[in-house]
Amino acid sequence: MENLRVKTGIEGLDSFIEGGFPKGRVYLVAGETGTGKTTFALQYLYFGVEYGDSGVYVTIDEKPERIVEDALTLGWNLEKLMDENKLLMVELSPYFSDIKKVDAFQIAENLRGYINEIEAKRLAIDPIAPLVARSDEPLTSLDAQMYVRNYLRKLFHALEELGVTTVGTSEIPTGTKKLSRYGVEEFLASGIVVLKLQMVETGFRRELYIRKMRGVNHNMGIFPFIIQPGRGIIISV
Amino acid sequence: MENLRVKTGIEGLDSFIEGGFPKGRVYLVAGETGTGKTTFALQYLYFGVEYGDSGVYVTIDEKPERIVEDALTLGWNLEKLMDENKLLMVELSPYFSDIKKVDAFQIAENLRGYINEIEAKRLAIDPIAPLVARSDEPLTSLDAQMYVRNYLRKLFHALEELGVTTVGTSEIPTGTKKLSRYGVEEFLASGIVVLKLQMVETGFRRELYIRKMRGVNHNMGIFPFIIQPGRGIIISV
Amino acid sequence: MENLRVKTGIEGLDSFIEGGFPKGRVYLVAGETGTGKTTFALQYLYFGVEYGDSGVYVTIDEKPERIVEDALTLGWNLEKLMDENKLLMVELSPYFSDIKKVDAFQIAENLRGYINEIEAKRLAIDPIAPLVARSDEPLTSLDAQMYVRNYLRKLFHALEELGVTTVGTSEIPTGTKKLSRYGVEEFLASGIVVLKLQMVETGFRRELYIRKMRGVNHNMGIFPFIIQPGRGIIISV
Amino acid sequence: MENLRVKTGIEGLDSFIEGGFPKGRVYLVAGETGTGKTTFALQYLYFGVEYGDSGVYVTIDEKPERIVEDALTLGWNLEKLMDENKLLMVELSPYFSDIKKVDAFQIAENLRGYINEIEAKRLAIDPIAPLVARSDEPLTSLDAQMYVRNYLRKLFHALEELGVTTVGTSEIPTGTKKLSRYGVEEFLASGIVVLKLQMVETGFRRELYIRKMRGVNHNMGIFPFIIQPGRGIIISV
Amino acid sequence: MENLRVKTGIEGLDSFIEGGFPKGRVYLVAGETGTGKTTFALQYLYFGVEYGDSGVYVTIDEKPERIVEDALTLGWNLEKLMDENKLLMVELSPYFSDIKKVDAFQIAENLRGYINEIEAKRLAIDPIAPLVARSDEPLTSLDAQMYVRNYLRKLFHALEELGVTTVGTSEIPTGTKKLSRYGVEEFLASGIVVLKLQMVETGFRRELYIRKMRGVNHNMGIFPFIIQPGRGIIISV
Amino acid sequence: MENLRVKTGIEGLDSFIEGGFPKGRVYLVAGETGTGKTTFALQYLYFGVEYGDSGVYVTIDEKPERIVEDALTLGWNLEKLMDENKLLMVELSPYFSDIKKVDAFQIAENLRGYINEIEAKRLAIDPIAPLVARSDEPLTSLDAQMYVRNYLRKLFHALEELGVTTVGTSEIPTGTKKLSRYGVEEFLASGIVVLKLQMVETGFRRELYIRKMRGVNHNMGIFPFIIQPGRGIIISV
Repeated sequence: MENLRVKTGIEGLDSFIEGGFPKGRVYLVAGETGTGKTTFALQYLYFGVEYGDSGVYVTIDEKPERIVEDALTLGWNLEKLMDENKLLMVELSPYFSDIKKVDAFQIAENLRGYINEIEAKRLAIDPIAPLVARSDEPLTSLDAQMYVRNYLRKLFHALEELGVTTVGTSEIPTGTKKLSRYGVEEFLASGIVVLKLQMVETGFRRELYIRKMRGVNHNMGIFPFIIQPGRGIIISV
Repeated sequence: MENLRVKTGIEGLDSFIEGGFPKGRVYLVAGETGTGKTTFALQYLYFGVEYGDSGVYVTIDEKPERIVEDALTLGWNLEKLMDENKLLMVELSPYFSDIKKVDAFQIAENLRGYINEIEAKRLAIDPIAPLVARSDEPLTSLDAQMYVRNYLRKLFHALEELGVTTVGTSEIPTGTKKLSRYGVEEFLASGIVVLKLQMVETGFRRELYIRKMRGVNHNMGIFPFIIQPGRGIIISV
Repeated sequence: MENLRVKTGIEGLDSFIEGGFPKGRVYLVAGETGTGKTTFALQYLYFGVEYGDSGVYVTIDEKPERIVEDALTLGWNLEKLMDENKLLMVELSPYFSDIKKVDAFQIAENLRGYINEIEAKRLAIDPIAPLVARSDEPLTSLDAQMYVRNYLRKLFHALEELGVTTVGTSEIPTGTKKLSRYGVEEFLASGIVVLKLQMVETGFRRELYIRKMRGVNHNMGIFPFIIQPGRGIIISV
Repeated sequence: MENLRVKTGIEGLDSFIEGGFPKGRVYLVAGETGTGKTTFALQYLYFGVEYGDSGVYVTIDEKPERIVEDALTLGWNLEKLMDENKLLMVELSPYFSDIKKVDAFQIAENLRGYINEIEAKRLAIDPIAPLVARSDEPLTSLDAQMYVRNYLRKLFHALEELGVTTVGTSEIPTGTKKLSRYGVEEFLASGIVVLKLQMVETGFRRELYIRKMRGVNHNMGIFPFIIQPGRGIIISV
Repeated sequence: MENLRVKTGIEGLDSFIEGGFPKGRVYLVAGETGTGKTTFALQYLYFGVEYGDSGVYVTIDEKPERIVEDALTLGWNLEKLMDENKLLMVELSPYFSDIKKVDAFQIAENLRGYINEIEAKRLAIDPIAPLVARSDEPLTSLDAQMYVRNYLRKLFHALEELGVTTVGTSEIPTGTKKLSRYGVEEFLASGIVVLKLQMVETGFRRELYIRKMRGVNHNMGIFPFIIQPGRGIIISV
Repeated sequence: MENLRVKTGIEGLDSFIEGGFPKGRVYLVAGETGTGKTTFALQYLYFGVEYGDSGVYVTIDEKPERIVEDALTLGWNLEKLMDENKLLMVELSPYFSDIKKVDAFQIAENLRGYINEIEAKRLAIDPIAPLVARSDEPLTSLDAQMYVRNYLRKLFHALEELGVTTVGTSEIPTGTKKLSRYGVEEFLASGIVVLKLQMVETGFRRELYIRKMRGVNHNMGIFPFIIQPGRGIIISV
């Protein structure tokens, strides 16, 4: 069954989840702002290439050129990977700039094109929340909750059918105990890795834990980690 | 009266509730994401077959094939049970993908078909929340609460009339002190088992307790448990 | 004045409130799910019969046959009382299944019929919250609060005119510090007994206290209690 | 200036506020349910008669006959005072039973009639919150706040012009840190006495403090009190 | 630069802010009910007269004659100042009694008249919140926030153009951690003095601190204070 | 790569972020009222001039002349810089005084004019929140969140295209754990510096930390700082 696992690219993390993410599903990396979600998503794709998997990186709030620039400070040359057709950087902002009414299937259909283009095995969506497009009609608060759930369920199922293993970043609204923007994403994903900034005496410490991993007898610990240029996220065990 | 109890399939739990769930009612397994609700629901059906009861597993957010795959990692071969007509995996997502206006009775009617098909004695609905379909009209917040309560009451009563004993999973919104998505499910169910992730020094510990069990003089303790491949949920007493 | 008190049927409780509930009013038994509200309501009627009072039990969310079944596990044979015309089990669900627009006076009028049928002195409504029927028009949040208060005031006044002493169960939304679903019930009732599950080291302990009792110099203590088959709620003093 | 103070009727309290309430204004007695607000209001009127002031008691949620009954258990014979035209019990419920659109001036006008009838010097309104009548149009949440404030300001000013000194009870929503239902009453009243149930080891203790008293250099302490038959609220200094 | 500061009239406070409020701006005195906001505003004007500045006192919720009466208990004879044309008491309630749609500029225009009448240098508005008049159209919650901010910005800028130095009282909703009714006032004002009731062992202690003071290197301490007849607010350093 | 960093002007801060802000992006300085956000923004521009960069200061809630006045108390002569065409003070209030419907691109277009006028390299927007203009239609709460995110994303991207490095101040609603008014700003910005008032024994202490800095291996400590006339924000390491 070894070959059904997708290595995360995060040193140490794979051993906590029996070798990697079960293949072909959608996983969340959840954290408040500044916790390292984008680094995680990049690392997942960058080392994915080392493992032989091409990857597509979908960005909504950030310009792709910015991501490329930031990755360089981590020692990761994305442009090289892009030139080799092992990485595709996709910006979806225009779809949402007018809160256009986009269907979950349309988005998945577009992504299929990019995935096929480089025969990608990995997909990173950074972040998931703004992918939820406006509904056709004004929704009361009860209906809005149902709408978001249905929208994301369709999107996640469609992503699974694309054959890729997806890592989506999930914004934890600052200062809350939630795991996601809408409060339903975590119930729809197959697994969740949580990144947090833990306040200690005179500053902050980075911590990571696995909150959920369907079909995996995962480690239940909370682990400190650092982000190191050239290596990215490194877990201290 | 021994024969009026339905064994839960969770080692240890039955002894806490005088032998099992009182037959023919609706029970909730409540927990945040990643607490083991799906494992509980599967275990309830899987060991149910060992006790001679066929079961229907209803899934809304997850594809049945995923559930089957995950069960395998717990050592449970669901396909075998499905082939023997002792288990039926049902996906209800399509009903809700367009927030269609579905009636509680319609859903129960559909379930009746599946139950009759394999003469099921056990039903698992994972999760309950998305079964609440959109109402015909936009509802203010006061009316929405009444609507959800009425909808779920009708559904629960209809399920009871189907003759099965139902375990429904109830999502506790992450970081809240609630027991359910809408805050009324727990008042309508005949019993509630709560699963939680208790933060301890350097990680999390799984815990379980019985919050409510109508007609049962149940144990009031909080118990640690583990999820073990091949055996599922095991309570440490 | 002894004869103006209605014994609660709960051993010990009567002594905390100078002999019993002042006659002819509406009292709340408030608690989260699983705290013993239904047991309290049943005990109030069951022992009421022993004291010579017939009683009407109104259920909305639960089927009467379920209540009868559960009471048996407490050693209380309700069917016998029903056969002797000392107890009437009434299910009001159908009234509310379509969120019909029902008036508080209509409900009281219906109850009058049942009360007269067995010359009941005691009434239990389990629970109160779903008795609030939908209003004729959509209400903003300010108006909704006024509507619920007016509705319940009319209902409570009407119940008092029926000549019975009423115990209504009040759902405390799980995890909140409220005493009722709408936040106004406790101000309209003549008294409140609170049941709670107090978390202690390795489990839960049942506790009871009197929060309010108009016209009574009541005990201010918090008391542990157990629910024992054959005897129901027993307070440890 | 001694003669410009209105004695509260609560032993001890007068000494905390330089002899009594400054005359002719509106004061709040704020507390959660069961804290003794009605006892305070009754005591204010009952001992007012001893001091030579007639009083009007306005009730909205409770029937006047209930209040009379409860007062008896405190040793206060209100019927006698009513027969001597020193006390008038007024029920305003009918005004609000249909959430009729009543103007603050109309209410004050009605009260003027009752006040003149017995030349009352004291007025008790128990409670204030339901006096806020429905507005002519549906209000958004911003407008609703402004509406309630304007409504109550007009009512309070009108009450002051009636020449009486008013004690209104203010419901603290259970479990909140508020001082009133709408959150503006306390800013409009000339003074506030807070009653609370303080949880101590094995039960509750009654406590009282003065939160605000315009034009008075009031005591800043928190004091335990008891409610004693025949004497009412007694502060332990 | 000494002459560009406006003395607050509160003994001790001036030394905390380099001699007084920077001239010609809008300051908030924020506190829950009963914290001494009105005393602060009165003291600001009363001692202002001693310093040679005439002042206008704007009241919305309270009748001016009440304010005059209360000031007397603090030993401040406002009527004398009014007779000498050094103080003007203005009641703005009528403007808002029907939630009329008033523009921020209209209010400022009216105030200009009063200010010119006595060549006032100081203005006190007690409180600020009800000055926000109703908008022309119903506003969703997002728009309401923008509306209030724009309304108050215009009002504050207009007040600054009147050449006076303004102290406005800001109601802290009881039991919250906010500094104002709408949550934007503190960002628009040039400075904030906070008054609070700090619960200590057996009662409350008054405390004051400077939360913000643009252009001033202010003291960062929290100071106990008392309100003394004849002297008003006295800070213990 | 040294030349791609923009010095912050805050002594000590640059060393925490590898020499300065990565060039050409949008950064937030987040804090409650009175924490020093405006001082930070001014210091960023004032010392920017010393480093050879001209700057544009955009103000919405405050009049530019006030800012100039306050800067003087910090020893910074802005008028001199304005005369030398090294600083431009821009007031955007009029755009928003009628909650006009302004597009994010229009605002950016206007800013381009000012930036070109003095060939600015730095831009300060104080604060960001009121820049979000009203939408064309009333928005439900779900749509409002999407609208604000899309609006700010467009604005931030447009600002980046102007070639300047932007510091925007972000209001933390008083008493909350948020980092911004709308809860999305922090996810859209490239970095966040947080300023806070930490309550210590008898007063407040100013503290600063870096919460997020894309592409920078930033310091994770929390540092006390003071605001000193002539020097501005000084961090104690």
